[in-house]
Amino acid sequence: MNKSKLSTDSYKGVRDFYPADMAVQNYIFETWSKTAKSFGYENYDASILEPAELYKAKGAENEEMVNEQTYTFIDRGNREVTLRPEMTPTVARMVAGKRRELQFPLRWYSIPNLFRYERPQRGRLREHWQLNCDIFGADDYTADVEVIALAYQLLIDFGATPDMFEILINNRREMTELYNKIGITDDGKINQLSQLNDRKNKISIDQYNETLVEILGDMNLATAVTEIIENISGENQVTKGLFDLDITNVKIDRSIARGFNYYTGTIFEIVDRHEENNRAMLGGGRYDNLTQMFSDEPISGIGFGMGDVTMKDFLISHNLLPNTVMLTAAKIKIIPTETEYNLDSQKIAQQIRARGISVDTAIGTKKLGKKIADAALQGVTYIIVIGPNELAQGKFTLKNLPLNTEETGSLEDLLTVILSNK
Amino acid sequence: MNKSKLSTDSYKGVRDFYPADMAVQNYIFETWSKTAKSFGYENYDASILEPAELYKAKGAENEEMVNEQTYTFIDRGNREVTLRPEMTPTVARMVAGKRRELQFPLRWYSIPNLFRYERPQRGRLREHWQLNCDIFGADDYTADVEVIALAYQLLIDFGATPDMFEILINNRREMTELYNKIGITDDGKINQLSQLNDRKNKISIDQYNETLVEILGDMNLATAVTEIIENISGENQVTKGLFDLDITNVKIDRSIARGFNYYTGTIFEIVDRHEENNRAMLGGGRYDNLTQMFSDEPISGIGFGMGDVTMKDFLISHNLLPNTVMLTAAKIKIIPTETEYNLDSQKIAQQIRARGISVDTAIGTKKLGKKIADAALQGVTYIIVIGPNELAQGKFTLKNLPLNTEETGSLEDLLTVILSNK
Repeated sequence: MNKSKLSTDSYKGVRDFYPADMAVQNYIFETWSKTAKSFGYENYDASILEPAELYKAKGAENEEMVNEQTYTFIDRGNREVTLRPEMTPTVARMVAGKRRELQFPLRWYSIPNLFRYERPQRGRLREHWQLNCDIFGADDYTADVEVIALAYQLLIDFGATPDMFEILINNRREMTELYNKIGITDDGKINQLSQLNDRKNKISIDQYNETLVEILGDMNLATAVTEIIENISGENQVTKGLFDLDITNVKIDRSIARGFNYYTGTIFEIVDRHEENNRAMLGGGRYDNLTQMFSDEPISGIGFGMGDVTMKDFLISHNLLPNTVMLTAAKIKIIPTETEYNLDSQKIAQQIRARGISVDTAIGTKKLGKKIADAALQGVTYIIVIGPNELAQGKFTLKNLPLNTEETGSLEDLLTVILSNK
Repeated sequence: MNKSKLSTDSYKGVRDFYPADMAVQNYIFETWSKTAKSFGYENYDASILEPAELYKAKGAENEEMVNEQTYTFIDRGNREVTLRPEMTPTVARMVAGKRRELQFPLRWYSIPNLFRYERPQRGRLREHWQLNCDIFGADDYTADVEVIALAYQLLIDFGATPDMFEILINNRREMTELYNKIGITDDGKINQLSQLNDRKNKISIDQYNETLVEILGDMNLATAVTEIIENISGENQVTKGLFDLDITNVKIDRSIARGFNYYTGTIFEIVDRHEENNRAMLGGGRYDNLTQMFSDEPISGIGFGMGDVTMKDFLISHNLLPNTVMLTAAKIKIIPTETEYNLDSQKIAQQIRARGISVDTAIGTKKLGKKIADAALQGVTYIIVIGPNELAQGKFTLKNLPLNTEETGSLEDLLTVILSNK
């Protein structure tokens, strides 16, 4: 058969995780989980498949996202299905579904796989993972303080120092009050201003100013708005609470808007302060009634999301990714001199493994020297070569590859050496 | 707005993982990972989105699966995409893609999320997770021994004993030899026999016998085939190797066929011996050239897959699921008597957390008694109530909820108590 061969490329815009990539991913996910759990957040998840109506219900402002940026298709049972583009609608569905059985306030976290149809573009992925942390059913401002303290601690637990990032805080309600004070009371206009501020970093200053005047129809009002936005001397209960917890890389930033319309109070972002990577790496906010599309009983909450790609970029820019994370090989490799000693090697590996040490065997057909070279390449710490002499005498040589040292003895002796070196 | 409310149901045939469900799922995944790593298997993954052609390439026998049982759709860029129904084509793609850089033999594992379009039916899910373990580039029979020993150890590491399950082994090559010996040499017929055996447990004995005679067109030959299939006294290198590793709940079972046509040597299953759950819970086999659709250089391998639902059923039937797995609450809850002490509670929580203990705060608006009752319901071990007296005196009472004991002292004194109780 002279069939043409298939490409080994993955689907456009998604990633293959080879062991070294996966090790980084696991390190990020495990660190996230550990920190979230230390704050009492419980892990949840759901399927990536959701009824499409879940995303349509949020109203007109979302139409573009639903129609053009999601993977939505009709299944064989004629149901419209969407690959979830964000986790908030899913968690709202789950919380609303069991609101009578759950003990509020709830603290929940998840690391969902999310999908977004993006036009092919450098660095724009069609899927990513995102840590989502939320507290539901706590209206007090100290819930806002806690969620932001958790976001802060997430970075600290990767080894970051507070000078590497900054927490920017705003509040939708305070913004409305500030606009009201200068005579802007129309909700539609306030919404337009909020959307304009959300795009502030994506457009030029001239474009920004032009649009501002367009919305307000008045140069003086535009100047007054600019003064509000540029005032960074503010503080509020949340920033004071964070200072009380010794979290001081925090400031009020009135230009923070956040895209989603469901936010009603505090909104916040964490920005990377690295000069080459100066961008928002985490964002969130407070919503008064997230579950309103499912139920008339309001459930409030505050939460944030943080992507795996942004997290990895932050770790790389600040040199916070330990090399040891990528070492995924077994600690010991048993290397038979010939294939006829493969089963003996498996038996010895089994005895070592029973002592809680990871071990594998070089049971391929390569020459002994190549097997040893491969072990070194893979990052194995110890090797034990098994041949007829070793098996006859019951004495083995344990070689430490990174240190280039060796010791000879019974298997039990060598296990003592290995276990004493951690 | 008198909008009708959305349903809180998930999409048909998929699961929501509330914290207690997720805790079980995490326990299963973590135990799987730990065992796989102890054998030196490295974790990998890929996106659930794959080019549809990956599943079409395997040939006609797969057409039903591809056409009727996968989620396949056309994306906005006119590409045909499939939600992966199994991991083997993906891992073959990845191994073939980097075959020049990888050090063989490779030992790889993954816990992919898989999707299959099933007609709605009790207990038939449209998505699940499946542990996949494979060794690539090792032709020796001791690779087969190792992979089966890993499957065995996976169950042992959940606390299973060997009497709870049985390992059934067959070999496609040996079957061909046995058929040849009684005069069946036609490959098509051997393939039909293999497919019939694969369905053996799904059809009646009468149906089985009728189909057997139909395929062979000869009663005597049918009797000879039945004798081969029913002979359980066989052994081979692989079963002997497993006995050498003290794995003895193993037998040759000539009726084991496994569905996939890519198997060429050893095939195996592990069956649950629980009377109410007597079914295959894990299956795998050896393939000579899995990467042939990508490359002319053959890469052999042996591996298996094991589903999360089957695993959970096994743990439940044999009472192997520890209750403690489901306890996901923080170890300590700080309970302010009034909301005005919420921020103080957050500060105390931060001090405790810095010592490596998980802790959260009852910052809701419920009455004190209700907050304490909620903490008990959630499975919190310790509570500390914070009010004006405690804050003024710097003395707190630590209550152990399960033991119903309490101690009073400075925060430092209480931390000593908590840390000494593990």
